[in-house]
Amino acid sequence: MTGEDPIKNLIDALRRLPGVGEKSAQRFAYFIIGMTGRDAKSIAQAIVEVKERIKVCSICYNLAEADPCPICADPKRDRSIICVLEDPRDLIALEKSGSFVGVYHILGGLISPIANIGADELRIEELRRRIVAEGVREVIIATNPTKEGDLTSHVIQERLAGTNVRITRIAQGLPAGGDLEYFDSQTLTAALTNRREL
Amino acid sequence: MTGEDPIKNLIDALRRLPGVGEKSAQRFAYFIIGMTGRDAKSIAQAIVEVKERIKVCSICYNLAEADPCPICADPKRDRSIICVLEDPRDLIALEKSGSFVGVYHILGGLISPIANIGADELRIEELRRRIVAEGVREVIIATNPTKEGDLTSHVIQERLAGTNVRITRIAQGLPAGGDLEYFDSQTLTAALTNRREL
Repeated sequence: MTGEDPIKNLIDALRRLPGVGEKSAQRFAYFIIGMTGRDAKSIAQAIVEVKERIKVCSICYNLAEADPCPICADPKRDRSIICVLEDPRDLIALEKSGSFVGVYHILGGLISPIANIGADELRIEELRRRIVAEGVREVIIATNPTKEGDLTSHVIQERLAGTNVRITRIAQGLPAGGDLEYFDSQTLTAALTNRREL
Repeated sequence: MTGEDPIKNLIDALRRLPGVGEKSAQRFAYFIIGMTGRDAKSIAQAIVEVKERIKVCSICYNLAEADPCPICADPKRDRSIICVLEDPRDLIALEKSGSFVGVYHILGGLISPIANIGADELRIEELRRRIVAEGVREVIIATNPTKEGDLTSHVIQERLAGTNVRITRIAQGLPAGGDLEYFDSQTLTAALTNRREL
């Protein structure tokens, strides 16, 4: 990178972030240039540290410093109920609601014909193995109430056929087309409570 | 920082960027976690490098790797015309328009009674000294056509009284209340061309 313009380099680097265009990247870059060296370095260090220290939990695929993650390692959590989520941000939103005492399973995305993401790119087989190995009673599918989330829920239901596990879907207390991670604890609690049999 | 949650650290660090709230910082953080280590490191490195390599030009206060900056060092630029700007982003926008052959002077902000920024926090005295020392013919005040920009222009005009320099103001071809850095080259060229005597 040395030799190129460091301001342009930084703008280009920041443009890789989701939803950040040229103008936002410029604004961020000049803000960083105006920060103290110490503050700027703390951002750089936070980026490096997160990559060095954060691991994927080998049980639920949540992101955490420890493997298994603190939730999977917590003896007070009910291992017989697994809540299936698209990504770790959804897990944070649900944990904030405080309404779930079971454990999680992070799919790592949703099936999307448009984005060319198929069922085999998600951790559905891993979910099936967990259910069989650990004697799980119930799987709550808490993917977003969108086309992709509903399709993913449907495929999971198909793939879990024969496991005899109870499969439920988080309630449509969430408005259709919405994105799970943006709702308040009360809405999330209602949606969990009103889950319906599939 | 060690010992705290690295994801939370990163979210907190990214929240310091202008206009970035909790949700955007979360989205950025998880995106970074999902990047390759190499790509994430290149963002961190771009932040560190920009702080290490970028200097403030001792003549015009532009940001650049060299001091004087490439514009001040360019023998083809007309040193007898100085265009006065709020910040280096405005300089980039004007340079893109290709309509200015003179040199610049970066104020480092605008006078703002609300934000408690006074005239003495800007580089107005430095501008006066340049004009006296370098035999400048004309000063084009190209601050934004906003209350703060107009007030700053007015104060600069007062402070330059007695220097016998021609003082002009960038034309109100820009819509009032707008922000200079967001306009296209054509609008900026028109505004420069139609500058009026103060």
